[in-house]
Amino acid sequence: MDFESLKQLIHSHRSIRKFKPDSIDEALLNEILECGIRASSSGNMQSWSVVVTEDEKIKESLYHAHMSQEMILQAPLILTFCSDFNRIRNWVDLHNSKQSFDDFFGFLIGALDAVLASQNITLACESNGLGICYLGSTLAGADKISEILALPRHVMPVTSIVVGVPDENPKTRMRLPMKAVVHKDKYRSMDDEELKAVYKEFENAAWERYNSNPAIAENIRKLDIHSVSDYYTSEIKYSKNLHEQVSQMLLKLLKEKNFY
Amino acid sequence: MDFESLKQLIHSHRSIRKFKPDSIDEALLNEILECGIRASSSGNMQSWSVVVTEDEKIKESLYHAHMSQEMILQAPLILTFCSDFNRIRNWVDLHNSKQSFDDFFGFLIGALDAVLASQNITLACESNGLGICYLGSTLAGADKISEILALPRHVMPVTSIVVGVPDENPKTRMRLPMKAVVHKDKYRSMDDEELKAVYKEFENAAWERYNSNPAIAENIRKLDIHSVSDYYTSEIKYSKNLHEQVSQMLLKLLKEKNFY
Repeated sequence: MDFESLKQLIHSHRSIRKFKPDSIDEALLNEILECGIRASSSGNMQSWSVVVTEDEKIKESLYHAHMSQEMILQAPLILTFCSDFNRIRNWVDLHNSKQSFDDFFGFLIGALDAVLASQNITLACESNGLGICYLGSTLAGADKISEILALPRHVMPVTSIVVGVPDENPKTRMRLPMKAVVHKDKYRSMDDEELKAVYKEFENAAWERYNSNPAIAENIRKLDIHSVSDYYTSEIKYSKNLHEQVSQMLLKLLKEKNFY
Repeated sequence: MDFESLKQLIHSHRSIRKFKPDSIDEALLNEILECGIRASSSGNMQSWSVVVTEDEKIKESLYHAHMSQEMILQAPLILTFCSDFNRIRNWVDLHNSKQSFDDFFGFLIGALDAVLASQNITLACESNGLGICYLGSTLAGADKISEILALPRHVMPVTSIVVGVPDENPKTRMRLPMKAVVHKDKYRSMDDEELKAVYKEFENAAWERYNSNPAIAENIRKLDIHSVSDYYTSEIKYSKNLHEQVSQMLLKLLKEKNFY
């Protein structure tokens, strides 16, 4: 496969949040999932799993766990990617081998495997004209999602995507210039002037976007938000308060899952 | 980009551990890195960074941190992907906004962003005929790697790839059948018979592979290993002892990084 075509695919990614009711052909879905299985996996353990949810009742429950985002009801499929050592530990028990993997390192190995698979699956969806959106709410709602999907010990949800036929055609999102994320040989923090320079266009694009969305624009007025960074750490986005609550929940859930 | 070409690219992935000395063109490398920047990112925060190491002295240090794997010295490039909230927190300070992100939830958001980017970059490398190998040792050596690459607080290494022109052409690795990793609507654990069935071919392929590698074959005899699962949890692979040590180190490092 030539790089030009891959670049075009990758550069045309944008999250899709509105879907047509069309369902997804099962044979195609299986081919898409196979692309996830071919992703790299630590020690070839394949310490991940994916729950493919189509059932309307379960989707309704997931909708509430994912902060009532409308796209979850609209999309024909929700894929929940998990760090999974349940299967492997059962297999180890089957052979009476010494046991392992019930620890924090195990959780992270599985989380990485799961995310690698999710990105192959994402690109496979998009090359078929399907739209996806990653659900960051998977971590924030991990306790509820775990219950809804009946995830046992040693299985922890990490990320999800909704998948369907797009019913919108949004623009791609502004990204930071390469020098903001790429470091040569060693890490080097930017000084204030460099930071201002790399964030300038990003801030302008984000601010314009907020103000073209009436709901966000109203929140910006109400919450006395004067900059894009104000917005990011405000109570409607990634506030300290929310982050601390979610962190405590995640650590508690990892403990219950025997991963910490 | 058509699905057939993407499938072919994804299905032909195998880790490359032997490299020719050829360096990688800088313009091409930049295009490859841009593919990472276009990956999905939680809230478009781009809470990741990548350290691109070419310097021979730093590579030599990374070689030791990565358990002396020869490929690290051979490959022209090592890319270390990090969960990074240092840049964002500095930007937030620049605007005197309320602060956040110094917590476990923040670490995980950044880790996911980093891994999504790494997989786009991996496919971009492979579509150019370059070979890559993910380094699981990034987590196991995270404390040393963090020092070598001068990663500040709120920057945590998550995964790495070595990149170069392949000097070997190994077969693709056996994967489990789809039903081992895909669950419909809810999670369901397999019973012993199902487990045996899904692992059968995987075990046969792995056992054959171990015995065709003289170093592994000798270890199998010495360590009284009788099954693939014995091997996986033995002291030369993912033993309980190793896992507990690494878990403690990772939690300590996350604490130092102010991520937990």
